[in-house]
Amino acid sequence: MSDPLGSVSPPHRIRVRYCETDRMGIAHHGVYAAWFEEARTEWMRAQGSSYREFEEQGYKLPIIEMTCRYKRSVTYDDELLVTTTLLAQSAVRFTLGYEIHRCDDGSLVATGTTELACLGPSGRPTRLPFSF
Amino acid sequence: MSDPLGSVSPPHRIRVRYCETDRMGIAHHGVYAAWFEEARTEWMRAQGSSYREFEEQGYKLPIIEMTCRYKRSVTYDDELLVTTTLLAQSAVRFTLGYEIHRCDDGSLVATGTTELACLGPSGRPTRLPFSF
Amino acid sequence: MSDPLGSVSPPHRIRVRYCETDRMGIAHHGVYAAWFEEARTEWMRAQGSSYREFEEQGYKLPIIEMTCRYKRSVTYDDELLVTTTLLAQSAVRFTLGYEIHRCDDGSLVATGTTELACLGPSGRPTRLPFSF
Amino acid sequence: MSDPLGSVSPPHRIRVRYCETDRMGIAHHGVYAAWFEEARTEWMRAQGSSYREFEEQGYKLPIIEMTCRYKRSVTYDDELLVTTTLLAQSAVRFTLGYEIHRCDDGSLVATGTTELACLGPSGRPTRLPFSF
Repeated sequence: MSDPLGSVSPPHRIRVRYCETDRMGIAHHGVYAAWFEEARTEWMRAQGSSYREFEEQGYKLPIIEMTCRYKRSVTYDDELLVTTTLLAQSAVRFTLGYEIHRCDDGSLVATGTTELACLGPSGRPTRLPFSF
Repeated sequence: MSDPLGSVSPPHRIRVRYCETDRMGIAHHGVYAAWFEEARTEWMRAQGSSYREFEEQGYKLPIIEMTCRYKRSVTYDDELLVTTTLLAQSAVRFTLGYEIHRCDDGSLVATGTTELACLGPSGRPTRLPFSF
Repeated sequence: MSDPLGSVSPPHRIRVRYCETDRMGIAHHGVYAAWFEEARTEWMRAQGSSYREFEEQGYKLPIIEMTCRYKRSVTYDDELLVTTTLLAQSAVRFTLGYEIHRCDDGSLVATGTTELACLGPSGRPTRLPFSF
Repeated sequence: MSDPLGSVSPPHRIRVRYCETDRMGIAHHGVYAAWFEEARTEWMRAQGSSYREFEEQGYKLPIIEMTCRYKRSVTYDDELLVTTTLLAQSAVRFTLGYEIHRCDDGSLVATGTTELACLGPSGRPTRLPFSF
């Protein structure tokens, strides 16, 4: 739980689902949010935290902002690695950065960020109940 | 709210979203559940009920069973009409039937059913707080 | 088709689907991409263009970058208006801006952007076959 | 590739995504189609076939019918095992059955079926280019 700013978790593996593609033949740009989210869950777990447990204690981490830059399309059955990095942290917010690479040739597929707020059991912004 | 068994609501219009298609070039079979659900919301509203209000009163209507038979594929930007019919009703459950037709030529796209249970504020099966 | 930079289309109406919410009780942040996309389709239609026809002629408009800033959460059955604006345009790319407001009180829900590239039948960047 | 009718593949592991839950607090019923599909891909791979390769050779396997019976709800971060079984096979169609169990206590979450047709490069029903 003492992960310094900028440290990187082990990459999380994703295999593109058929339903995630669109009629352009590629993974739809909207599904990257789900991949970032899945990687974020595993990144928190690797930090020693469980997002599910936080929620069960009444905390929530809603997304304030998301960005995604699409570099190279991927399609059904492609295997990807998503890397999550802590980019910034304040008392009640933090920003994660993501990189998605193909497993086969390591090429960069997309980069993105999410800024998350911490809401406490009252529903108001509150200090993170953990530090990374 | 005195809609007899088998009565049919006004059809609900759907336009296929781009993200709902897959790389086969057609609307993905999994998205029909969302279309049935959207039609169900409007069907309940047409019966004089609001599903959102039921939930706010502590009731839930989870799906117990869903079936869908796909007759003809549709794709992005197609306009569809979804018709909802009450097929069966018991004290704590009811079954709705759906038909999806194309707007342009009226051809049948799919048929389906959902069986829903009524859970009360305690989380246990309970009598429907309304009758159709 | 002579819409000057910055002009705004008629807003597009969305009603939040049940499946678009998550266990936080609000519309999931990832679904805003679908709403922007649906609004974009209608914005193009209002400009006199059909994205579906472009695709049928072999053109594609993949997303290069998306951003979304979430201002206020929404939930199931909420009615929203999505406004689309042309923010920038070059020979082979253009950027659209979006604003989502609640229908009931007009409050701002989210803002976002998408940058789109134009690919021709060869799959290579090409001039837009239209101007806005 | 000589898997007799009724044989069962190794179960495929799924972890429920946050975006797959809805405001009832459970995985949305519509997402089970994606889980069946993901399991189906791996089942075909275990049979020695790659669905992606079939598509690249011009074949398609559209869903003709899907059913799902929901036994017990699951939620975010739950780990599930999906088992796929060949239930029936004719020249141009086959039916798969699925069972989803929780990893932790082995309890049954859902059962379902999908009937798939085989379309050849011409777009017409055709003999399966493989046998299971």
